[in-house]
Amino acid sequence: MSVLALAGGVGGAKLANGLAAILPPGTLTIAVNTGDDFTHLGLTICPDIDSVTYALAGLNDTVRGWGMADESWAFMAALRDLGGEDWFNLGDRDLATHVLRTHLLRDAPLSAVTADLTARLGIKQAVVPMSDDPVASIIESDRGDLNFQDYFVRYQCAPRFHAIRFAGAAQARPAPAILAALDDPALEAIILCPSNPILSIGPILAVPGMRERIAARRVPCVALSPFIAGQAVKGPAAKIMGELGLPTTPATVATHYAGLIDGLVVDDADLGAGAPVGVAFHGTNILMRDPADQQRLAREVMAFARTLAQAGP
Amino acid sequence: MSVLALAGGVGGAKLANGLAAILPPGTLTIAVNTGDDFTHLGLTICPDIDSVTYALAGLNDTVRGWGMADESWAFMAALRDLGGEDWFNLGDRDLATHVLRTHLLRDAPLSAVTADLTARLGIKQAVVPMSDDPVASIIESDRGDLNFQDYFVRYQCAPRFHAIRFAGAAQARPAPAILAALDDPALEAIILCPSNPILSIGPILAVPGMRERIAARRVPCVALSPFIAGQAVKGPAAKIMGELGLPTTPATVATHYAGLIDGLVVDDADLGAGAPVGVAFHGTNILMRDPADQQRLAREVMAFARTLAQAGP
Repeated sequence: MSVLALAGGVGGAKLANGLAAILPPGTLTIAVNTGDDFTHLGLTICPDIDSVTYALAGLNDTVRGWGMADESWAFMAALRDLGGEDWFNLGDRDLATHVLRTHLLRDAPLSAVTADLTARLGIKQAVVPMSDDPVASIIESDRGDLNFQDYFVRYQCAPRFHAIRFAGAAQARPAPAILAALDDPALEAIILCPSNPILSIGPILAVPGMRERIAARRVPCVALSPFIAGQAVKGPAAKIMGELGLPTTPATVATHYAGLIDGLVVDDADLGAGAPVGVAFHGTNILMRDPADQQRLAREVMAFARTLAQAGP
Repeated sequence: MSVLALAGGVGGAKLANGLAAILPPGTLTIAVNTGDDFTHLGLTICPDIDSVTYALAGLNDTVRGWGMADESWAFMAALRDLGGEDWFNLGDRDLATHVLRTHLLRDAPLSAVTADLTARLGIKQAVVPMSDDPVASIIESDRGDLNFQDYFVRYQCAPRFHAIRFAGAAQARPAPAILAALDDPALEAIILCPSNPILSIGPILAVPGMRERIAARRVPCVALSPFIAGQAVKGPAAKIMGELGLPTTPATVATHYAGLIDGLVVDDADLGAGAPVGVAFHGTNILMRDPADQQRLAREVMAFARTLAQAGP
């Protein structure tokens, strides 16, 4: 049996790490958002691929919540002395990933480079960029069109969110390993990790063919709500939903994923809000504070998917 | 009055720093060897420009003898974890220079980028690459042709030196600021810093027009011996001279620079060896242990050059 998971940044990386731990090696494919990727100081930076990779390699910083553990910042201090752009923090250890990836990308596509780097770190599941073709998330805001990292890091999500579009998406194809996972006869479930549905899962689904292939594949598709008691666990999801006039409820998430998902895992605190027609809800404690939480939730998600498979479409 | 100095790595950087300190701001042009430059992990690395820059900015490590003071190595450790090439050490702080320079080189030539970076560090004299065109020092050795950093760092100068050649030199031109310094009517002296005559000053003189313009300019040209009592102060100069069958004496240096220099500053310990015809020797203590030594030697070099000017050609 095999599983395909779609993941964005930190929240997605947590569940992906749980799934990676409970599933046999080589049976999980994690399709990761690359709409956040950008070139900074000439380096190709893939924040979501790195969040997933560092989590699966056990290198992620769990206190700060992003980047690598035991990180240091001497590069940034020296860059500042040189008058370089310092709005995007690059840790000394993290920088090794960016430099090596940028170097390897001269001769190989991002999916091959990612497979190479994750293997070097001992990761036994497949971390795959959503596409080898560049797709850039552009935030349409009250300050005009913003590159994703300008919106997210430079302006700390302060601009009012109007819409998101995906530059280059029309010409993009899903990465080969994702197509292979979707075509795998052993595929058992498709999991949409608890990442921001608009900013993180949205770009993956915007790659032509991705949404259609997921919807057409007759295996349970389960999403996880990123909300607990009407609040986002992390990040700007609640702020954006508010700016779009949408309630921060599981129903909003279920509606957003309508036609795609069979089930939604929601926090017990939100179970009372009720499920829309056609989507089964499973309530549990969705907060993941440590690897034990991640694995417990991953097991519940897989068990829920299996009940949906038995129930049939 | 103005001064042009030719410098390679650490020894040259020391005298250049002394000259920079004793000469009024804006009157010293330091033409720096770029034959050592190379691309590593996609980054453009200019070891001699950095040695000179860090020395003039007071950022150089005086104990280790190369790179930046207060350096850390977290990037290298992470790079090693990723299986990246680790034979060339890149400090976390040093890396800011390489990343920013590589980024800026997309839009400007090396001399403009170097002027920019040195200005940001508060350097008031001109640090100028010998050329904006790529010139690569290739070491012909008993292990075949080696890129300079392979010879110098990877193999620690162990291969037997046969000859050096300069790939790309035929198409190279001196950097504009060096031509301007050579044409400056106020030019008072040309100083060949105590860098390796073959490996470090050699590439600069190999840029077409450089040697001829220096020889044609009727101001005193003074070199400094890199030897003390038959030993190189630092680096492989003595080993190379031995492999070429040349004695490590001031006379060898004077002969190497024949037709170019009017005077040679040598260590008192080597004064007895005698000067060849046409080159005046000045004996002193040439060891530079600290900035005070650097400035004292710089003053002596300038005073020696002025006596040569009075003596006339």
